[in-house]
Amino acid sequence: MTVRYGIVGLGRMGKRHAENLALRVPGAALVAACSPVAEELAYARDTLQVSGLHERYEDLLARKDVDAVFIVTPNALHPENIVAALRAGKHVFCEKPLGMDVKSCEMVEAEAAKHPRQKAMIGYVRRFDESYEDAYRRVADGQIGTPFLVRAQTTDQNDPSGFFVRFAPQSGGIFVDMSVHDTDLVRWLLGAPKALRVFATGTIAVHEGLRACGDIDNGIAIVEFAGGKSAVIYASRTMPHGHETTTEVIGTTGRLMVGRGGNRNRVEIADASGIRTETTPTFYERFADAFLREAMYFTDCVAHDRTPALTLHDATEATRIAVALRTSLVERRVVDIA
Amino acid sequence: MTVRYGIVGLGRMGKRHAENLALRVPGAALVAACSPVAEELAYARDTLQVSGLHERYEDLLARKDVDAVFIVTPNALHPENIVAALRAGKHVFCEKPLGMDVKSCEMVEAEAAKHPRQKAMIGYVRRFDESYEDAYRRVADGQIGTPFLVRAQTTDQNDPSGFFVRFAPQSGGIFVDMSVHDTDLVRWLLGAPKALRVFATGTIAVHEGLRACGDIDNGIAIVEFAGGKSAVIYASRTMPHGHETTTEVIGTTGRLMVGRGGNRNRVEIADASGIRTETTPTFYERFADAFLREAMYFTDCVAHDRTPALTLHDATEATRIAVALRTSLVERRVVDIA
Amino acid sequence: MTVRYGIVGLGRMGKRHAENLALRVPGAALVAACSPVAEELAYARDTLQVSGLHERYEDLLARKDVDAVFIVTPNALHPENIVAALRAGKHVFCEKPLGMDVKSCEMVEAEAAKHPRQKAMIGYVRRFDESYEDAYRRVADGQIGTPFLVRAQTTDQNDPSGFFVRFAPQSGGIFVDMSVHDTDLVRWLLGAPKALRVFATGTIAVHEGLRACGDIDNGIAIVEFAGGKSAVIYASRTMPHGHETTTEVIGTTGRLMVGRGGNRNRVEIADASGIRTETTPTFYERFADAFLREAMYFTDCVAHDRTPALTLHDATEATRIAVALRTSLVERRVVDIA
Amino acid sequence: MTVRYGIVGLGRMGKRHAENLALRVPGAALVAACSPVAEELAYARDTLQVSGLHERYEDLLARKDVDAVFIVTPNALHPENIVAALRAGKHVFCEKPLGMDVKSCEMVEAEAAKHPRQKAMIGYVRRFDESYEDAYRRVADGQIGTPFLVRAQTTDQNDPSGFFVRFAPQSGGIFVDMSVHDTDLVRWLLGAPKALRVFATGTIAVHEGLRACGDIDNGIAIVEFAGGKSAVIYASRTMPHGHETTTEVIGTTGRLMVGRGGNRNRVEIADASGIRTETTPTFYERFADAFLREAMYFTDCVAHDRTPALTLHDATEATRIAVALRTSLVERRVVDIA
Repeated sequence: MTVRYGIVGLGRMGKRHAENLALRVPGAALVAACSPVAEELAYARDTLQVSGLHERYEDLLARKDVDAVFIVTPNALHPENIVAALRAGKHVFCEKPLGMDVKSCEMVEAEAAKHPRQKAMIGYVRRFDESYEDAYRRVADGQIGTPFLVRAQTTDQNDPSGFFVRFAPQSGGIFVDMSVHDTDLVRWLLGAPKALRVFATGTIAVHEGLRACGDIDNGIAIVEFAGGKSAVIYASRTMPHGHETTTEVIGTTGRLMVGRGGNRNRVEIADASGIRTETTPTFYERFADAFLREAMYFTDCVAHDRTPALTLHDATEATRIAVALRTSLVERRVVDIA
Repeated sequence: MTVRYGIVGLGRMGKRHAENLALRVPGAALVAACSPVAEELAYARDTLQVSGLHERYEDLLARKDVDAVFIVTPNALHPENIVAALRAGKHVFCEKPLGMDVKSCEMVEAEAAKHPRQKAMIGYVRRFDESYEDAYRRVADGQIGTPFLVRAQTTDQNDPSGFFVRFAPQSGGIFVDMSVHDTDLVRWLLGAPKALRVFATGTIAVHEGLRACGDIDNGIAIVEFAGGKSAVIYASRTMPHGHETTTEVIGTTGRLMVGRGGNRNRVEIADASGIRTETTPTFYERFADAFLREAMYFTDCVAHDRTPALTLHDATEATRIAVALRTSLVERRVVDIA
Repeated sequence: MTVRYGIVGLGRMGKRHAENLALRVPGAALVAACSPVAEELAYARDTLQVSGLHERYEDLLARKDVDAVFIVTPNALHPENIVAALRAGKHVFCEKPLGMDVKSCEMVEAEAAKHPRQKAMIGYVRRFDESYEDAYRRVADGQIGTPFLVRAQTTDQNDPSGFFVRFAPQSGGIFVDMSVHDTDLVRWLLGAPKALRVFATGTIAVHEGLRACGDIDNGIAIVEFAGGKSAVIYASRTMPHGHETTTEVIGTTGRLMVGRGGNRNRVEIADASGIRTETTPTFYERFADAFLREAMYFTDCVAHDRTPALTLHDATEATRIAVALRTSLVERRVVDIA
Repeated sequence: MTVRYGIVGLGRMGKRHAENLALRVPGAALVAACSPVAEELAYARDTLQVSGLHERYEDLLARKDVDAVFIVTPNALHPENIVAALRAGKHVFCEKPLGMDVKSCEMVEAEAAKHPRQKAMIGYVRRFDESYEDAYRRVADGQIGTPFLVRAQTTDQNDPSGFFVRFAPQSGGIFVDMSVHDTDLVRWLLGAPKALRVFATGTIAVHEGLRACGDIDNGIAIVEFAGGKSAVIYASRTMPHGHETTTEVIGTTGRLMVGRGGNRNRVEIADASGIRTETTPTFYERFADAFLREAMYFTDCVAHDRTPALTLHDATEATRIAVALRTSLVERRVVDIA
């Protein structure tokens, strides 16, 4: 059985997802695309040979030949887009986050509960990265004993132009926009413990323009979970060398480090500056394979009627912690989650 | 335009190539397969939906719907398989090496010269690895000044069962079987200088069974090229930790190292043994992406009528040097190539 | 001029310092030693040829031939030991920490102010490590722009016997005992900003025996400083692989990492477990050179009447932050320092 | 018992050795120095408080208060300097190499045989480096099974001024001057097998001035030993990043790599160029500790009447192989040693 997809949103990430669905995911077909931007629809038609082109989301949802919807719209639209797809009887894949506040996440969860045969998954892509999968398996195998602390970092290379500053007001802030990946990873690797308290702080190191919307470009945080587990999180938009996502899982008998250095490939350069490796410039070079693998995984779940291991509730919890981090930052206090 | 492939040979590597052509190479279709083994044809039919199944190569070549042939047969058959395909009007991709002796290589070159519109390329897969491409580009950009020395290593994890020993008599010996990858890389990275002299030696460190056919399990060699360029080559079948292919390019102002350590992914493990990374178990995990990229490259050459940068003559030269290494080993002397 | 030392305390660390002073520090002589333990005095006499042996500290202080006192007594005794030495007219080197509470630190500072010609320095040894010196110099040179965040880690290899648990009640807790090194480093590398707030938490991952005295074996913390600077601190007594002290300094245009991996030497091992390096088993192997260098530095300050760059006030501030971390842990709240 | 040294030669390396003997080697005293250069003798007197200053070597040898001679003279003088010291009844430490040809080495060995109670050792300093000692011990412990191949590299940072070119005619050529360290290491790590054949080649990559004396700035070589053991050697004077001495020992069940990267300390730098470490600029920063340790070892041998494990014969063999490499290079042929 081929899973026939309609994609919603064809911006930079939307295009990448669309190409995977159209060209690289076995058992998937991209039959429809929705965008308010004419050029984006033309791209879908001309480059990917997508026949069903729609300006309005409801038209795409109305198509009988669409089994599943792939949502790559602005974050604020995710909850309503998902609900609409579920009500139209479609399976749903949606880019992270599920929602930018807990209430909207829970609303989607409630709706999904009414459609138990439809698959719904949020794209926490790192879970599908080969290295993270390996780390998760080692933890699950007991190779590091009992994991009790995760140190997680998502750091982007500085964009001197500060282009991203203009989007900061809609981003939900650095913790909701970036660290939500880490709040998901941390829960996953620690065995989904209940989050209890958070403390966050940070600074504007470079981009003063963030001050107007109360955001920062470097944030640090601690999350306490039940059972004596905890996490340290670091997010930065000002790294000098590239995108570096690292996650360290510390257990009672071993420690795993994923992704240190973020080397872009297997080339090491010796020159007058010493010996060096270059770093992946953006998250995309780092996780390109994982994006493909998550689409393959979801397609497989739909095709074979399997429930994704990554649940909507996981996505709700990732948002819950990230939102608490933002509250802690803004209100300058420890925030109790429980 | 879709390039329609017929594949010849469906052993372990043949299956991997077949899957790439059938599922992952945009613009490629796998329409026919040839194998003397019934199970292999059944695999092509059932797993890859290949419709044209043939026991005899000439039947596959006779098909009008096959644009290009993908040859993954035993090394000794490569020359005749390529010639037959060329004479049948097909484009030809063939796994390395072109041939196991220089004469048969030159015979194929001569035949190909009669079919200038047909593409023919030998699968020196490393040239299509992202890291090697990056290294090549840096060299070409002059980032290391003038390259004058390459140190190249192809080392396989030891198989305690010594299973490979039974194939040693047909392999051409460690230099022709393994180092031919390195002789190609070395030429490529040094700018295709003319090989002048070689000296090779080696030992049986583990697998005494190799002695009967005059082969070794660890070989070292020096190759001198025109213009003061040279190479040091190491091949081993007895590494303890995994497959490790490394290539160091030394220039007048910089040095590049490709592939050191051969880490299988981005996970680092700290435990009672220290801090470690695991290594890719075989060449396949190391070069899986490169195998896909070479098939994409060749498909693109065929589809757009472009001549592959990797020529049959390159493949002849790679064999020429590798054969000279074997001669040096066996005859215990410096061998003049020029 | 030779600086004549009397050492107080000849336990494990005392012996190491004594050996440095007696054998390895140019311009230093170890002329007297004080210990209540007969075997320790015998060691000083027989192994290091120390002639002046004392059971009582006041007797050592009364010696005219002692220019400077080297204090390696239990932490709780540091303040009174230092004050007595200052009053006896001696220069004073004392192992870290200056004191286990801020009040006693400030008392010592006040006393030292009355003896402006006598040198007094607390042994924050990492400042004298060649790598930390290099990092500090790079920061001072502006190589990473403005430093704004330090992530510091002091982690010891797990002792399965839990021997250290019995000393935990007197240690001041993990933050005062271990992280005080980090609170000093962090201030040093960030340019001595004023600490404003801290938040700390942690867990008992392995050693349940710590619960009785309210201590933990893994602690994490955030420190906020004036000017938008901050630090993340991690202390652990349960690492699987060895002692690993790392310090990451993040600036607006660069990042420095000191000490990652803690490799014990320059040997890399490839075997069936992959490729690995072993780690320094304890802090001593990691910092043996730095212990020597700090003694050389202090000796030089005394001999040439130079004021140590590392002041008693620095040591007071290191304690101040560490004590606040403990308070935050115990009282489960953010602690305002300012 | 204190070992009283007289040092001969106070050039750059001589000064370093002198400082170690005068200040840092327990149980050693530097009582006399010999140099034809007045400034060097003044240095010994003023900086190191050496009382016995001599322009003529025989005067130093005539001193009754000198137990051992430390020879740091030009390589060509080593044999006669050693013989004279032995005849004067002194123990002898001499910088490498023992001699620049095999005959002179054997002459010294013969002389030493007549003075069995006097210690004589050549300073193959790498054997005293902590990492090499660790590697050697692992090999001896059987941790890598049977070692059968060593790949050794001595590479210096390029000096764009080409200052060294003027000394090339007296250096013995790159293999005798630099690789003699490697020929010694290789024998040591492989268990002192008998060398059988060598092949060497190389090029002038940068310093054309070497051509006049038949030398090169980059050399590569293969050495075959009895028992199927072998070595690959690389020497370079043109590295872009610093001095990098690496030695890889390959055994039947494991592999050791010593010194890769040559990082100067434990600092890692991330900036716009990627993530990098700087390299030790010269061999001295790399081996400063080992120079001290070899002096301590030799002093200990003299003081306790123990025969150094590193024998004159080892030094003869290191020269024998290095000279054969030069012959192979110059005569462009395989050289039989046996």
